[in-house]
Formats: sequence, structure tokens, C-alpha cells
Amino acid sequence: MNVGIIGLGLMGGSIAQALQQRHHIVAYDINEDALQYAMNHKIIHEMSRNLTDFAQKVQVVFLCLYPNDIITFIKDHQLAFSSNTVLIEIAGIKTKFVKDLLPFLRQDLDLVMTHPIAGREKIGVRHANPSIFNKQNFVIVPTDRNTPEHLELVREFAREMGFGTITDLSPEAHDEIIAYTSQLTHVLSLALVDADDFHFQTARFIGDSYRDLTRIAMINEKLWSDLLIANHAHLIPRIDQFIDSLSRYKDAIQNNDVQTLVSLMKLAKERRFSIEKDVKE
Amino acid sequence: MNVGIIGLGLMGGSIAQALQQRHHIVAYDINEDALQYAMNHKIIHEMSRNLTDFAQKVQVVFLCLYPNDIITFIKDHQLAFSSNTVLIEIAGIKTKFVKDLLPFLRQDLDLVMTHPIAGREKIGVRHANPSIFNKQNFVIVPTDRNTPEHLELVREFAREMGFGTITDLSPEAHDEIIAYTSQLTHVLSLALVDADDFHFQTARFIGDSYRDLTRIAMINEKLWSDLLIANHAHLIPRIDQFIDSLSRYKDAIQNNDVQTLVSLMKLAKERRFSIEKDVKE
Repeated sequence: MNVGIIGLGLMGGSIAQALQQRHHIVAYDINEDALQYAMNHKIIHEMSRNLTDFAQKVQVVFLCLYPNDIITFIKDHQLAFSSNTVLIEIAGIKTKFVKDLLPFLRQDLDLVMTHPIAGREKIGVRHANPSIFNKQNFVIVPTDRNTPEHLELVREFAREMGFGTITDLSPEAHDEIIAYTSQLTHVLSLALVDADDFHFQTARFIGDSYRDLTRIAMINEKLWSDLLIANHAHLIPRIDQFIDSLSRYKDAIQNNDVQTLVSLMKLAKERRFSIEKDVKE
Repeated sequence: MNVGIIGLGLMGGSIAQALQQRHHIVAYDINEDALQYAMNHKIIHEMSRNLTDFAQKVQVVFLCLYPNDIITFIKDHQLAFSSNTVLIEIAGIKTKFVKDLLPFLRQDLDLVMTHPIAGREKIGVRHANPSIFNKQNFVIVPTDRNTPEHLELVREFAREMGFGTITDLSPEAHDEIIAYTSQLTHVLSLALVDADDFHFQTARFIGDSYRDLTRIAMINEKLWSDLLIANHAHLIPRIDQFIDSLSRYKDAIQNNDVQTLVSLMKLAKERRFSIEKDVKE
């Protein structure tokens, strides 16, 4: 199948690599360097800087752009695509698209909303690597307009890319849970680095725990500021809930309350172990 | 050299493995299973369940017990050791020992306080692995009573174990910075798991970011409740400072303030990259 990639960054490049053995990959990007790099490294089969040409070549297109850019791109360029083209977007936010994008989408285009829960703290096609998808979680957010065939096609792509679980969610459920599992997680990592007073040379006094918790603070700030603000209605309550949880620990520590502290830790440990177990199954 | 290990758990076992090629390792533990396992797996050269025998065989002893147990052990058993024995403790807290242990220590024993900043979220000698020390940070907290020869001996052990940096700190400085780099980090991980409302099957919607941030929530609650409470004077202000940092993010998100959010993220990213760079050097 001819598969198009719009936006040849870390995610677009990784998807191209993951699918290139079974499909003919054509990429479109405004960045000539990224296209040339991907051609030279055989990440893609064909490149295009002309959207009209590109759009006529592909039946399926992965939109690998920042969330706000996806909306702008579709509004500005959807006329270029043939009828029945399947557009697959991969952003970390969904209700915004339901509100700001679907009403403007051509009736003969099918937009399938997905969230491959994978990535790395790097930017650009040079860091693309299909192994980031291996055994990870993939979410599909179907709408009434998606045909069963196109949803199944996307599931097949997810399996080909190596994802371990594929789950359907409503747009609201997606944004609610991602606020916790992904967005809160990134905010905590950033705030932890921010809380360093640099009174000491931090690097000499850290272990893997600090390294792991702050790794995702090496963030793509353009992407993540978009995501966090777009989902603020779900994220703010989760930040508050986290502060409540943290305050329970703070109170127990302040009151020398070993018993409460041990109970809290035991519960957290059990919950985390059960997640680990779920992941392996 | 005959090196003793008191407490053959994850840390004691890993130290034994790391030093066994150059030294004769004798372990003492009240847990017969742990000793037998370590003998069977050639982690130690000799085992002892009789402290008097053990103490006469070793010139240097690693105390690999929980912080409070170190104090109790020394108070109860220090008469067993020969004059000039070097005791090396490895706990994650120091001012407590200065106050509650050093005044009670026999004048002819030398206690060197250290903190190997390494570990894993497992318990017991079965999970011991000397690679956990590889290129990690090692802290020595010298006191006026330590002889230069004994401090140099401990540095040599740290190098033999594979540590990447060795830094001297005062007891107060140690407890101040560890409150941030290690203890706050563990509390955040626990509170993040605690903030899950289990409204969804979490395992299906997490990525490596959530896995990495919550890994250390699989905690040894006996050890860590000791550590956190012993260091509450330094830890509570760092929790408050973290909540301030988190609130800056919350405010920016709530106010749709992309500019502030991007600035905060850029600063955190730069800081984290500079730590990464420091670590590699």
C-alpha cells in the first residue's frame, strides 16, 4: 500500500521505518533536510515537497504534526486529497479535534484519531527508531464517521508497528486518562528539575531514580505546551489530586507517623506491582 | 584483605560481589537462608552466624543494615570487634548518626560514613548485582575521628566497586542534598501512583515516562520510612519547594499562558541537559 507521512520528525520517521518493509512510504515535509536525510538513510521510499503530487499518490496518510498544526493543515490543505483518503492523526489530545477539526473535515475523507503512547526525549528524523513502538500501548479513538474497514486498517498498522496493546477509547476518556498517565507525569518531571536550588553540583549526588524521573524534562516544549494547555480541563484536577496525595506523605513525615507512611508505601507498591503485572500479560 | 559484610541483602550482596575478586569476603547475617544462598552462589567466601567469631576475622566491616538497625547493632555489639576495626556504614542519612551513634562509639573503632547512591527496587541477596554500582555516585561523609588512611581505604573500595565519582560532604550537606535528589524523588513517585483513581485500566494507557517515574514506588517501605522520617527537617522544605514549582506550571496551564509554560520548560530542559552533561564528564 502507498502510505504517506506528513511531518518527518521523530514520530513520522519512526512510523516510516516501522512500516517500510510492507508498504511504499512517501513523505511530505516543508523541511528539505529531513526528507533528504530520510531518503539517504532509506527510511522512506519517496519524498515530495509538492503537496498536490504527494496527495495523489497515497491512500493513507499519517499526520505527524503538532496538535495545533494538524488542525491548520487539514483546514488549509484538505482539498488536495482524493476522495476516501484515510487520514490518521497521532496527537496526544482528542476532544479538541472533535470540537475544532471534525466539523470542518470534508465528508469524503476519513480521519482516524489514534495515540501511539510512545516516544523519546529527542526531536527530529535523525532520532527515529521503530523500536520505540515495541510492546507499547496504542489507543484508537473512533468516531461515528469512521468506517469499520478503516478502523481495522489502523489496527493492522498498529500491529505491524509492533504495539503490544490496542484499545478503543472515547475522546473524553482518552483525554481524562492521558491527563494522568502522560501529562501529569511530564509536569512532575519538569517541576522536579525546577525545584533544584543548585546549591550543590546536582550531578554528583543523583542515582538512577533521579535520572529516570527527570529524563522526560528534556522536553519538546512546543509540542508539550500545546498538549498541556489543550487538555487543561482534565489536567488541572489531576495536578490538584497529586498535591493531595503528596500532602498525605508530607503530613505523615512531618508527624513522624511511621505507621501511616508504611501503609501508604505498601499500597503504592502493590498498585505499581499490579500495573507491572498487567503490562506483562 | 578480610572484608566483613553485616546484613546480606541487596546492598550487602552487591558489595560482596563487587569486592570478592580482590578480597576474602566473610558475611554475618541472622538469616541462614541468605548466607547459604550466598555461599552456594559464590557471592561470599565464608559465612558466620556467630558474631564473636566473625568479628575476630575481619579488619573492615560493611554495615548493610537499615539506618535504625545500624545504631542498635553498634550499641549492642561493638564490644565484639577488635581494636582499630574499620566500620563502614552505607545508609542514606548522616546527621542522625552524628547525633545518635558517634557519641556511643568505642574510641578505638573507626566508623566511616558513606552513601553509595545506587540500588534497585528489589529486596534480598538473590537480587544482588555489582553492576548497580557501575559509574554511579559515591559520597563519603568524613568525621574528625576518621583517620586519613581509613578514608583512603574506603575511597579505594569505592573505586574497586566501580563507582564513577567519589565526593566528600559534611553530614548536614549530605542530608540537605539527598532530601532533594533521592528522598523527594521517591516521595513523588509514590504520590504519583497514589494519585491514580483506577477509573481506567492504567496499564493499557501508560508509556515509558509513567513506567520510569513510578518504578521506585516498588519500594522497601521499612527502609524508606526510616530514611524519610529521619531526614524530615530537610525533606519537608523540599516538598514545599516542589509544590511551589508545580504551582508555577499549574498557573501557566490554567491561564493558557503558553509563553510562561514554554519558558519554564526551556529552563528545565537546559538544566536537565546540563546535569546529563555533568554526569558524562
